[in-house]
Amino acid sequence: MKAKVYVTLKSGVLDPQGKAIAGALAALGFDGVNDVRQGKYIELDLAETDEAQARAQVEQMCRKLLANTVIENFRVELA
Amino acid sequence: MKAKVYVTLKSGVLDPQGKAIAGALAALGFDGVNDVRQGKYIELDLAETDEAQARAQVEQMCRKLLANTVIENFRVELA
Repeated sequence: MKAKVYVTLKSGVLDPQGKAIAGALAALGFDGVNDVRQGKYIELDLAETDEAQARAQVEQMCRKLLANTVIENFRVELA
Repeated sequence: MKAKVYVTLKSGVLDPQGKAIAGALAALGFDGVNDVRQGKYIELDLAETDEAQARAQVEQMCRKLLANTVIENFRVELA
């Protein structure tokens, strides 16, 4: 079973990487970019075939390793 | 208009960051993880309100800055 994990900074947390991208886009002549936020995207290939168990396992992985839940949110999609 | 950009390594390109995550998950006792690939997730807030124009603009941004199209694929979602 494949799992997709999206890790994003919580709103209110400063995102210097996003700001750098916004600055670079402006320097390249792209106008009209109000805001940029950068997050992480992680694809996992799991041996687990049960959807509920896979979701529980991936959420546990997020809490323990993949996301810093103090400043980041995560979202899990299974396919 | 909000745009979400997913940048992933092309298949066949080595992903040491993904390998490191897989190793760390195994060390934490998560079994059954066959493969991990890490990508980037970028949220853009655009002034452009026309969907077709926004998509064209974001795809141009991906080719020029956000993705290295030699080794990476990108996917754009508008909302």
